[in-house]
Amino acid sequence: MNYIQQRFKVSFEYKVFFTEGLFSSRNPIFNEVLKEDHQENYSKKILFVIDDKIIQHFPDLDKQIDDYFAGNEYVQLIKEKIIVAGGEISKNDGQYLEKVIDAVNRNRIDRHSYIVGIGGGSVLDLTGYAAAISHRGIKVIRIPTTVLSQNDSGVGVKNGVNYKGKKNFLGTFAPPFAVFNDYEFLTTLDDRDWRSGISEAVKVALIKDEGFYQWLEDHAEDLVNRDKSSMEYLIKRCAELHVEHIGGGDPFEFGSSRPLDFGHWSAHKLEQLSNFDVLHGEAVSMGIALDSLYSALAGLLPQEDADKIVRLLLKMGLPVTHELMHLDRIDHPIFLGLQEFREHLGGQLTIMLLKEIGVGYEVHALDLELMMQAAQKLQNFNQSDLKLSAQC
Amino acid sequence: MNYIQQRFKVSFEYKVFFTEGLFSSRNPIFNEVLKEDHQENYSKKILFVIDDKIIQHFPDLDKQIDDYFAGNEYVQLIKEKIIVAGGEISKNDGQYLEKVIDAVNRNRIDRHSYIVGIGGGSVLDLTGYAAAISHRGIKVIRIPTTVLSQNDSGVGVKNGVNYKGKKNFLGTFAPPFAVFNDYEFLTTLDDRDWRSGISEAVKVALIKDEGFYQWLEDHAEDLVNRDKSSMEYLIKRCAELHVEHIGGGDPFEFGSSRPLDFGHWSAHKLEQLSNFDVLHGEAVSMGIALDSLYSALAGLLPQEDADKIVRLLLKMGLPVTHELMHLDRIDHPIFLGLQEFREHLGGQLTIMLLKEIGVGYEVHALDLELMMQAAQKLQNFNQSDLKLSAQC
Ligand SMILES: NC(=O)c1ccc[n+]([C@@H]2O[C@H](COP(=O)([O-])OP(=O)(O)OC[C@H]3O[C@@H](n4cnc5c(N)ncnc54)[C@H](O)[C@@H]3O)[C@@H](O)[C@H]2O)c1
Ligand SMILES: NC(=O)c1ccc[n+]([C@@H]2O[C@H](COP(=O)([O-])OP(=O)(O)OC[C@H]3O[C@@H](n4cnc5c(N)ncnc54)[C@H](O)[C@@H]3O)[C@@H](O)[C@H]2O)c1
Ligand SMILES: [Zn+2]
Ligand SMILES: [Zn+2]
Repeated sequence: MNYIQQRFKVSFEYKVFFTEGLFSSRNPIFNEVLKEDHQENYSKKILFVIDDKIIQHFPDLDKQIDDYFAGNEYVQLIKEKIIVAGGEISKNDGQYLEKVIDAVNRNRIDRHSYIVGIGGGSVLDLTGYAAAISHRGIKVIRIPTTVLSQNDSGVGVKNGVNYKGKKNFLGTFAPPFAVFNDYEFLTTLDDRDWRSGISEAVKVALIKDEGFYQWLEDHAEDLVNRDKSSMEYLIKRCAELHVEHIGGGDPFEFGSSRPLDFGHWSAHKLEQLSNFDVLHGEAVSMGIALDSLYSALAGLLPQEDADKIVRLLLKMGLPVTHELMHLDRIDHPIFLGLQEFREHLGGQLTIMLLKEIGVGYEVHALDLELMMQAAQKLQNFNQSDLKLSAQC
Repeated sequence: MNYIQQRFKVSFEYKVFFTEGLFSSRNPIFNEVLKEDHQENYSKKILFVIDDKIIQHFPDLDKQIDDYFAGNEYVQLIKEKIIVAGGEISKNDGQYLEKVIDAVNRNRIDRHSYIVGIGGGSVLDLTGYAAAISHRGIKVIRIPTTVLSQNDSGVGVKNGVNYKGKKNFLGTFAPPFAVFNDYEFLTTLDDRDWRSGISEAVKVALIKDEGFYQWLEDHAEDLVNRDKSSMEYLIKRCAELHVEHIGGGDPFEFGSSRPLDFGHWSAHKLEQLSNFDVLHGEAVSMGIALDSLYSALAGLLPQEDADKIVRLLLKMGLPVTHELMHLDRIDHPIFLGLQEFREHLGGQLTIMLLKEIGVGYEVHALDLELMMQAAQKLQNFNQSDLKLSAQC
């Protein structure tokens, strides 16, 4: 055969910082990161894309950013901030993608300049995608402002927007230039968003780290009561587990296996079927509960462990079922999620289940009858738990 | 500082095949490539996106493809072929991108399946981009059908579409899964497209390979006369130089240097200003001529070498100037191309010039007065050459 062989490797690296008061004049971190990347004879630009809820909750932020970068020797701040609607709408409605791309064009942001996203996972996914496709990839800096995005989505290598309601149908793998996790942002989250971010921590603990799972059980109450140092630990440990997983494995997911998507096949579909009324973390909580009970019914996981997991989620104030999750027939719409999940990952269907707490187990088929039983059990679980909490 | 460090490498590889009659039942190459990538228990899909000029010139192709994949054990052919307008319009008009994405969605093409682009560089850039952003990257197979795409764009790692007339404003770096260069497609090119692909060969020879440049001089006439074996050699050598350059250097262009863009700063702008009436390869020819004469005026390249280059281009039937290239003032629209070029590459302006035939030399600023002189010289060159050819 007559051919030329191409072969090369590309190196990626970035840091995930943990800090507070990122834009305080006394906090040098951001500036130091820019300094390290400075190029002689060339002044980079920096453009901010911000979640509208952050603007509402932190009305001084705009000015703080202006002050922080005033007279900066490494970057030239674009004064105009691009405000996008927070939440899934930013990924669902094409106007927000267009808005960011248009700002890149108008402000002549180049590939060596920076786009900074400040917001929840949705706004970061949008910003990361816009940056990734502009000029074949502008550097993106993420400043996650929700529990979920600080411990999970914000520290990884993926971005995306939805297409015709399909989650993340459009997206790329594009490592960030840097991530800044600033605890202060989390203080304005409402309880629902606060809690929903915890489910990804339960997920990663279940798959990877029994000790961390134990810690979560021990600190469930502190976490629900918004204890700061507990949440800081949760975020850091969870981010570490994610970063290790990505760097140590198959970062751009050339294979079909995606262990961190434990509980996600039903979660993504539920989000979509509920028109995104159910938050990602809430849906993941239900998905974890479902697949844990299924793991037990399938004889993989001891039943008492599955029950423990569901109780922990309930203790965290997370939902474990929903009327759209009453899987009472084989053609239930949630089951379409299996096919979409396979399609999105590609290749053979690969679903992560649990063997032990802290140890996952991959399968390539699910028994839908058993899955319906698991869903049924969860409904009962929910009712008996409601009774329990009424007693307290 | 409190941070987590992420670091990883991602490996890429692909082959560029040279063949004829790719879809003949006697040609096993395509099938062998699919066989190597086969996964047990899972049948991949294969979706074709085809340049409408190819459909016109090869009316049997559709059926040939159907026959080639009938009963194939590795892939399931999507019968519907996605036909897109050939030429720059496919990158300029958003409806074609939408058409490909929609086909991916409707046919449920996943990340382990294949999208095959058959066409010129424009259709391949569009197809590659659509594949790269769908499900965070579907495997793309390129079947380039022009001289330019077989020797240059089709063998590299870039894709893209235009945005508000700006060339490749949206795009990604995404190595193909495989490339099949089938000589047969080139036989139906009109002379303009045939010749315009030759300019990229002159370019890469000038920057990298004096011997190849010499070969081009010796075979100029054969090439213009569409001698098959000369063109085969040109394409293979040029593809080799590209593949080596990409694999050996900075494949995803994290730096600001892009040696293979010799002659391109003005070329991209000219294409745009002419509403893409000027073909990419024609514009590159003019850009090479301009930057070669400039290199001489700037004292880098011997004048006789610059003249030799211009004469070679003219001998190849390529244009060396255009009314839009009469750079008679410092605010000439072509000069805006410098800024857009810098912006697209990012960082400090970096322009490749020539020191010798076969040896490039990078600079970070241009003297616009000298550039105007170079443009002026080219106009005269063109006239005297026209006289010369009238004499023959
Ligand atoms: N890229 C990845 O790897 C990855 C991984 C997991 C999840 N995700 C995606 O992340 C998204 C969910 O992200 P999320 O859970 O962060 O929710 P979100 O971004 O949808 O935000 C939830 C709500 O909180 C608001 N908000 C954000 N920060 C706030 C703050 N500090 N105070 C008050 N309100 C605030 C937002 O405006 C929004 O209304 C989903 O689209 C999910 O698919 C991506
Ligand atoms: N991705 C990269 O790295 C890269 C590099 C260089 C150029 N490019 C891009 O490639 C594009 C130019 O590609 P091109 O020169 O191949 O031209 P093209 O794709 O624009 O095609 C030119 C014309 O030839 C027709 N055509 C294609 N194959 C034919 C055939 N076999 N017979 C008859 N007609 C045929 C097309 O329909 C079109 O009308 C530009 O958009 C340029 O920016 C990309
Ligand atoms: Zn998740
Ligand atoms: Zn080119």
